[in-house]
Amino acid sequence: MSTKPLIRLMFLGTMLCMSLFALGQPPTGPFVISPQVHADKKVTFSYLAPDAKEVKLSGQFLKAAVSMTKGASGIWSVTVGPVKPDIYPYSFIVDGVNVMDPANAEFFPNERFKGSLVDIPGDKPLIHAVTDVPHGTVSYQSYPSIEGSTGSMVVYTPPGYEKDAAKKYPVFYLISGTTDTEETFFKVGRINFILDNLIAAGKAKPMIVVMPYGNPAARIAEQKGLPKPSDLISREGADAVNRSKMFETDLMTKLIPFVEKNYRTISNRDARAVGGFSRGGGQTLRAGFANMDQFAWICCYSAYLSTPEMESSYRNVYENPDKTNKDLKLLWVSVGNEDFLYNQTVEFLDFLKAKRVNYKSLITGGGHTWMNVKSYFAETAQLLFK
Amino acid sequence: MSTKPLIRLMFLGTMLCMSLFALGQPPTGPFVISPQVHADKKVTFSYLAPDAKEVKLSGQFLKAAVSMTKGASGIWSVTVGPVKPDIYPYSFIVDGVNVMDPANAEFFPNERFKGSLVDIPGDKPLIHAVTDVPHGTVSYQSYPSIEGSTGSMVVYTPPGYEKDAAKKYPVFYLISGTTDTEETFFKVGRINFILDNLIAAGKAKPMIVVMPYGNPAARIAEQKGLPKPSDLISREGADAVNRSKMFETDLMTKLIPFVEKNYRTISNRDARAVGGFSRGGGQTLRAGFANMDQFAWICCYSAYLSTPEMESSYRNVYENPDKTNKDLKLLWVSVGNEDFLYNQTVEFLDFLKAKRVNYKSLITGGGHTWMNVKSYFAETAQLLFK
Repeated sequence: MSTKPLIRLMFLGTMLCMSLFALGQPPTGPFVISPQVHADKKVTFSYLAPDAKEVKLSGQFLKAAVSMTKGASGIWSVTVGPVKPDIYPYSFIVDGVNVMDPANAEFFPNERFKGSLVDIPGDKPLIHAVTDVPHGTVSYQSYPSIEGSTGSMVVYTPPGYEKDAAKKYPVFYLISGTTDTEETFFKVGRINFILDNLIAAGKAKPMIVVMPYGNPAARIAEQKGLPKPSDLISREGADAVNRSKMFETDLMTKLIPFVEKNYRTISNRDARAVGGFSRGGGQTLRAGFANMDQFAWICCYSAYLSTPEMESSYRNVYENPDKTNKDLKLLWVSVGNEDFLYNQTVEFLDFLKAKRVNYKSLITGGGHTWMNVKSYFAETAQLLFK
Repeated sequence: MSTKPLIRLMFLGTMLCMSLFALGQPPTGPFVISPQVHADKKVTFSYLAPDAKEVKLSGQFLKAAVSMTKGASGIWSVTVGPVKPDIYPYSFIVDGVNVMDPANAEFFPNERFKGSLVDIPGDKPLIHAVTDVPHGTVSYQSYPSIEGSTGSMVVYTPPGYEKDAAKKYPVFYLISGTTDTEETFFKVGRINFILDNLIAAGKAKPMIVVMPYGNPAARIAEQKGLPKPSDLISREGADAVNRSKMFETDLMTKLIPFVEKNYRTISNRDARAVGGFSRGGGQTLRAGFANMDQFAWICCYSAYLSTPEMESSYRNVYENPDKTNKDLKLLWVSVGNEDFLYNQTVEFLDFLKAKRVNYKSLITGGGHTWMNVKSYFAETAQLLFK
C-alpha cells in the first residue's frame, strides 16, 4: 500500500477492531467521539489527524471557520457555542480539504458538497425532534418516469396510514434544491418528524408527502449511460427553464398518476399541494402556475420567478387576479433576509402585489439554509388542506 | 471568512451557480464529473483541488491506492480498469486526508469511515441492477425499543404488498456490520433491487426484509444524552457479547412484535429468518442459536462464533444435532478466502462438522467486502422459505 501512515494506521486500526469485535474483545487505539453536544449547548468537535498541519471547523452556526487544536493523541478538537438549538450542517477543513466528520453517521445528502449534521436539542423538544408520538413511515419508491427511465422518490405516509385501508389523504409534492437529492427533505429537513409532531398536536392534517428527485434530465442521461454534458454536471445548468419543464412533465404525466394509483390519495386539486426550496421553489412556482387546475396550494421556500419569466410564461396567474385568488387556497413565499435571493424574492412579491395576486409571505432572519427551510415547512404544513 | 482560497472559491462558485440556476442562466466555472464509467469498463475519477500537493484514489477494486494527475484547471484525475462489473466503495486521499467524492451522491452509510460508491454495470444486468421489473418498497420506520428508546430500521416490502390486503409474507431479519447503520444493506447491499430481480424471475419467494440498527446500546446512550464511554464509540466495543445480548433482547421483545403487529407477516418460525454480515453475522448466530424455536433459517455472512463461546453458550445447538438438523431448514455460512476472518470461519465450520451439525457453506474469493455480501445475500434469498 502506498497510502500515507495515517491512512495505513486507520486501516489497520479498523481491521484490528473488526477482528476484535468479532471475537468479543475490546477495541484499542485512539477513538474519536464527535460531535459531543453538552448540556449548556456548547458543542465539541473532534477529528483524528496526527499528520495534518491545520484543521478547522466550518459550520452554519459559525460566522467563519474556527481553528481546531491538536491534542496529544493526534486528535484535533474545538468547543464552540453555546449554539442555538437546531440541526446544522458542518464539515472539517483539513489542510484545505473539506471533509465530513468520519465519526458521525448523520450526513447531508447532496450531489456536490459533503457535510455532516449536528443536532443541538432544545430544552423543550424542537419541532423536528423525535418524540414519543405515533410515527409515520418514510419510503423509498421507484416509479416509471419519462423517456423509459426509472424515477426515484421518498414518500412520507402519516401515522395510521397502514391501519385504515379505506381512508384517503391529501398529497404534498415537495421538491428540494439544486444538487440536493430526493433524500434531502427527509434527512436534513426531517419533515417526517415535523409532521409526526404537528399531527399528534392536532396542528396539521394527516397528509402524504411525496419528495421526488428534482432533475430528471441528469438522471436520464445517467441511466442511458450517456456522457453528461457539462451543463448537466450540476444536474441543473444551462437550460434551467427547459429542465424545469421536463421536471413538470414528469411530475404531471408520470409521478402524480403513479402516486394516485399506488397510494390512497384524495385525487383532486383541493387535496394537492406543491412546494419546494431554492431550485425546487422555482420548479414549484412553474409547475403550480402552469397547472392551477391541478394544485390549490403552492409553497415557495427561498425562491422566486423573475418578472420577465412571469410576463413571458405565467400571464394566466395575474391577468385575472380574482380568478387566481379564488382558485389558490394558498400561495406562500418565504425567504430569509440574509438569503442571497432575498432581493429577487422581494421583487417577486412586489410584482404579485402590483398585480393584485394574493399571497402569504414570511420574511425571517437567516440565509439560504435548511434551518430556515425546516421552519418554513412547519409553518406551511399547518395551513395546508384546511 | 478565514477559509483557504480553494474553499472560498468553491463557496463563491456555489453561490454563483445557485444564483444563476435560480435565474435560469448557465453555471460557469470548473465543474467535475466523477466517476465516469466508460463503455470498456474503464473508469475515470476526478477531484477539484487546485492547491493540493498529492491526490490518490483508493478503492476496493484496486490492490493499492493510485496517484492522480493534476490537470490545467486544478482537476486531478485518473483512469483505471477495466474494472470487473460490481458496486465498489472508494475515496480520495487528498494530501493524506481520506474524503468522499464530492461530485458523487452515492455514499456508504457508516458511523466511522466515509466512502463513495461506483457502480460498473455488467453487459447483462447484474443481480443488483435497477431493471424494468415490479419494484418493492423500502421504508424507514421507527419503533418503541428497549429502555424507552426509539429504535430505527429499514424495511423492504415486496412488489404487490400494498395491493393485496389479505396476503401475508415471511420475514428476513437482516443485521449489518460494525459501524454500519440500518441503511447499509439498502444503500450498499442493494437488497431491494436484488430481491425485485429474483422475485420477478421466480427465483426467490416474496418476503419482507427488516434491517434494524444493530447497536442499541450506543443509540440508547445517544438518546439519553449520556456521554458515550469509549467502548461505545465504535458502537460495539468492549462488551460485544453483552451488547449482542442487548440487541437480541431488542430483536425478540420489541422489534419482532412491532413488525408482526404492523406488517402482514406469517408469524411462525418457518417463516422467520435471521441473517447478517460481520458483527451482524455474530449477532445472527447468537440470536438464532438462542431462539431456534423462533427461527428456522440462519444466514451468517463473513462471521463465526468461537469454540469457547459455542461451548459456553450454545451447547443446545450441538448436543442433540439430529434435533438441530431437523429444526433448522438452513444454517448458512459464507466467507471469502481473503477475508481476515477466513481462518476463524473455517474453524467454526470444522466445529459444526465435528459436532454433526448440518450447514451449507460457500467459500468465495475476495475479502470482507460488500461485493461479497451482495452475492451471499442473493444466494441465500433463493433458498429461504422454500
